Amino acid sequence: MFLPKIKKYQKKYSYSYAFGSYPVLEILKKHSDKILLILFKQEGLESSATKEILELAQQKKIKTEINSKLIDKIAVKENTYVVAVFKKYDTVLDSDENHLVLVNPTNKGNLGTVIRTMLGFNFKNLGIINPSVDIFDPMVVRATMGGLFSINFMHYGTIDDYIKQFPNHNLYPFMLKGESNILDTVFKKPFTIIQGNESRGLDDRYLELGESVYIPHSKDIDSLNLSIASGISLWEASKDSLEFRR
Amino acid sequence: MFLPKIKKYQKKYSYSYAFGSYPVLEILKKHSDKILLILFKQEGLESSATKEILELAQQKKIKTEINSKLIDKIAVKENTYVVAVFKKYDTVLDSDENHLVLVNPTNKGNLGTVIRTMLGFNFKNLGIINPSVDIFDPMVVRATMGGLFSINFMHYGTIDDYIKQFPNHNLYPFMLKGESNILDTVFKKPFTIIQGNESRGLDDRYLELGESVYIPHSKDIDSLNLSIASGISLWEASKDSLEFRR
Repeated sequence: MFLPKIKKYQKKYSYSYAFGSYPVLEILKKHSDKILLILFKQEGLESSATKEILELAQQKKIKTEINSKLIDKIAVKENTYVVAVFKKYDTVLDSDENHLVLVNPTNKGNLGTVIRTMLGFNFKNLGIINPSVDIFDPMVVRATMGGLFSINFMHYGTIDDYIKQFPNHNLYPFMLKGESNILDTVFKKPFTIIQGNESRGLDDRYLELGESVYIPHSKDIDSLNLSIASGISLWEASKDSLEFRR
Repeated sequence: MFLPKIKKYQKKYSYSYAFGSYPVLEILKKHSDKILLILFKQEGLESSATKEILELAQQKKIKTEINSKLIDKIAVKENTYVVAVFKKYDTVLDSDENHLVLVNPTNKGNLGTVIRTMLGFNFKNLGIINPSVDIFDPMVVRATMGGLFSINFMHYGTIDDYIKQFPNHNLYPFMLKGESNILDTVFKKPFTIIQGNESRGLDDRYLELGESVYIPHSKDIDSLNLSIASGISLWEASKDSLEFRR
């Protein structure tokens, strides 16, 4: 397999990095064929997570290398003992499942938190309308805690491109001006929750798409943070599922 | 009033900064007596928000200064045109109201997002158990969008110190091991929602305090992000309030 020269991450690269044993284990389990190389630090070799990673890498015939210097050069945080270098990939959304669509997300931490929350509430399909923050940025991968490797995601030029591909999905754009209170909204499957950009939200055109929804809040704030609005919408749309009862 | 030498923010200072017109307007409205100085950039003087700030500052006899260089020296983001230098202050929690208590929060963005969410759901009283991230850090102030100036907050050495002060509050510690599903929980007023540290959560001792609660989620994640768990707990505990119906 082609092995790139490993430098500090840039968006234009065709590969990215997963830092830390938890994300590395996740990509080993979900997309091991995308891994080009796993880097280790000598001083981390004794941990049980590292041993599990080494074992899996051997089974799957993935190249490994001990190189502390290289890790220090590319890592975004201290105390990183293991890094997977992986090829970026595309996935396809499942047309039978419910989706989340983010329109022009710009914040890495928010995107990562939203992906982790999706997984928590059994959403595994994410549409992203461009332009968007780079979903493969190591900061996003990190914020998902490796959850990125468990979801399907696809980028679209416009919301119309998305809709053309999923004509049967019932659309629920979340907007301050939405017509229905989320507490009165019945999410009819298969459905798509649509959340707008951090600072601009969704423009008025989205009022014409499906059933627009608002999350009631006090007048003390202009709007909820994107990750909170996404979290509450995913929660409300899924919390009555049986899986959520312990 | 004593005017400090203005340098890049450090936690040990007795004063902090609010960057940007929205947070500056908020502190002018809520805690103007804490403002030591408002700094402006020449090129921002024409905006309507800046004019409002100048007017309020004049009314309240607050010192103002045009000093672009100084703003560039202390600002955390580009395009900051106005900065309020303010004295740190203490507030007292309202014993008749519901509270949120954060135990050892460590992440600035999370703390800011949680404060903004509190305000959105009509929670105005925050207890913080030390050690904690610095609530006056300009990054926190910024993440609250100035909402910090609209809430009461108080730091405590231990959870017992907090409980001693509010013996009538019903405690709801949120824990992965919690005994009650949040969907079955009735929050009896006045109540206190308790959320733990980002990586450790709450330790087992909290199982003995009040009624411990869990937010059901899939097995695909270890736990929800602190700001999401806080957001969902505040939402569930307040969403049936009348104010939330438009």
